[in-house]
Amino acid sequence: MKTVCPVPYNASDTILLGHGSGGRMSHQLIRDVFRAAFGNPLLDQDHDGCVFAVEAGRMAYSTDTFVVHPLFFKGGNIGDLAVNGTVNDLACCGAVPRYLATGFILEEGLPLTTLQAIVHSMQAAAGKAHVSIVTGDTKVVEHGKCDGIFINTSGVGIVPEGINIAPSRATVGDVVICSGNIGVHGVAIMSARDSLGFETALESDTTALNHITQQLLCTIADVHVLRDPTRGGVGTTLNEIAAAANVAIELDEAALPVPNAVKAASEILGIDPLYIANEGIMLVILPERHAEQALRLLQRFVESKNATTVGRVVASGRATVTLKTVYGNHRTVPMLAGEQLPRIC
Amino acid sequence: MKTVCPVPYNASDTILLGHGSGGRMSHQLIRDVFRAAFGNPLLDQDHDGCVFAVEAGRMAYSTDTFVVHPLFFKGGNIGDLAVNGTVNDLACCGAVPRYLATGFILEEGLPLTTLQAIVHSMQAAAGKAHVSIVTGDTKVVEHGKCDGIFINTSGVGIVPEGINIAPSRATVGDVVICSGNIGVHGVAIMSARDSLGFETALESDTTALNHITQQLLCTIADVHVLRDPTRGGVGTTLNEIAAAANVAIELDEAALPVPNAVKAASEILGIDPLYIANEGIMLVILPERHAEQALRLLQRFVESKNATTVGRVVASGRATVTLKTVYGNHRTVPMLAGEQLPRIC
Repeated sequence: MKTVCPVPYNASDTILLGHGSGGRMSHQLIRDVFRAAFGNPLLDQDHDGCVFAVEAGRMAYSTDTFVVHPLFFKGGNIGDLAVNGTVNDLACCGAVPRYLATGFILEEGLPLTTLQAIVHSMQAAAGKAHVSIVTGDTKVVEHGKCDGIFINTSGVGIVPEGINIAPSRATVGDVVICSGNIGVHGVAIMSARDSLGFETALESDTTALNHITQQLLCTIADVHVLRDPTRGGVGTTLNEIAAAANVAIELDEAALPVPNAVKAASEILGIDPLYIANEGIMLVILPERHAEQALRLLQRFVESKNATTVGRVVASGRATVTLKTVYGNHRTVPMLAGEQLPRIC
Repeated sequence: MKTVCPVPYNASDTILLGHGSGGRMSHQLIRDVFRAAFGNPLLDQDHDGCVFAVEAGRMAYSTDTFVVHPLFFKGGNIGDLAVNGTVNDLACCGAVPRYLATGFILEEGLPLTTLQAIVHSMQAAAGKAHVSIVTGDTKVVEHGKCDGIFINTSGVGIVPEGINIAPSRATVGDVVICSGNIGVHGVAIMSARDSLGFETALESDTTALNHITQQLLCTIADVHVLRDPTRGGVGTTLNEIAAAANVAIELDEAALPVPNAVKAASEILGIDPLYIANEGIMLVILPERHAEQALRLLQRFVESKNATTVGRVVASGRATVTLKTVYGNHRTVPMLAGEQLPRIC
């Protein structure tokens, strides 16, 4: 891997309030950490923003702030999570993600080596997703006024002609495909929290899904809904879709791809996998006649090799999500009410 | 003024961790606070992002995070500051600002009435600037892990054909116009800090400048640089421009519009007005032959009625900023080295 951080900081080099001044220390930080990693011609415009050409069409625009705790966990850190999260939000709008903007809040005392590692991960994730980080901002707050680092990523992308993805398009007869295992990211974060006192071998599945959505949308004429079930989990996300489309969605418990490690953690912590936050999976809702083709396509990608049909849209005129249990009876899956675990992303 | 916040919260209603869960409490907060204030058809798309039509051309994109302390100060609060700041960054790229995205980090325990007041100010500022807040995200962190509220605003805008604004375009023979009084926002924030122990009648001049830049760019064929001298002040901003264009800029101390209240505060605090952060002013750099017309135009707007010529680009081949003092000698104006006052925006 090429070295993107040419300044060899010592472990004792930390973020100072002066790095947020807008003056010389800010410029050094931008040059030595951010530009060293992200450098590209748009970022190099060196203005309060950047200017790029657009073609006539439709643009998707999304923003997300990341406050995950801890900053590093099995399978990723706040940096690649922040890039992948916004890339996936754009991808789930049906867009080809193009440009990202980043806003950093740094805590006085944050080791510069930590910042470098996070920024390096962001650039690696951006490279994999074929997006550029084109503009940014950095603020520094006093020690104790944030928690190491918070990152906002916003992004824009182009929606190809003919693509029409929206939660309100879920229609009776559609099937619900889940692109991969449920609960993996959430359980990886929980096990990284010392206070919860359990360990798992699970790694976060944080990854960009835009290559997959682009292939899917090129191949299948009529995908209705794409959505990454992050905070609130699959249960809450499906409730949002049911409400937007005013439809009833039925899940098949036996079909839900819940890994044993997630089941075990859920039992220990007394939580429902349907509400655990995910990062590296998405829900695909489309007419049943396209389901087989979509599954075959998804299963060709390593990130979605476990894609499977988990439910269907069974009625319109009422916004509900139900689960057909393994015992054959049905229970309502409401939206997550309060908080399951804060700062999962 | 119309009521935009229909939910009458009590002083004891506060942000809870559950408001960041992604579940029902998050949805209630979005509906009762954010949608109640910002509501517009793009926001109502209810997706992970929003999709809008674009025409062929050039787009400006900018992001800024706001961590100002205290949250409320004479003349504004973190909410209108966050909207105006990004609107002005886009305006200084030569763009017509169009859409904003907001990312909130809320501290557990923040009064909901405080959040409502801030969100209300954001919508009022967005309305004045003719921009829409079209997508957003909210995270909640535990009490003590941020400082009330941090806000990221990013934004996109359209750069009209023929407009070419860039710091690198500053050219020998150009004049430097400052659109208004220097140091006002910074001094207003400083006086709002109890710890600094001084008071001033000055109010922050935070305002959107895009109506002015649009008029300026419609009227004058060849504006070279626009820049709002926020963190680091006029001194640092001119150093950035000098470096980008590799030119020498000379300021005329006698011409600098420094109000007496800013002079007094600077003497008490031992700081240089050239490094105090500004919010409601901009620097305009353009060929001398257009200067009179630009000044007349700027002076017609209440926000820039004190516009005045403060310097000129005197040489190329060296990137320096100098000040011709009131005594007739010259001193170098370097970039601000460290930190003058943290969390001014």
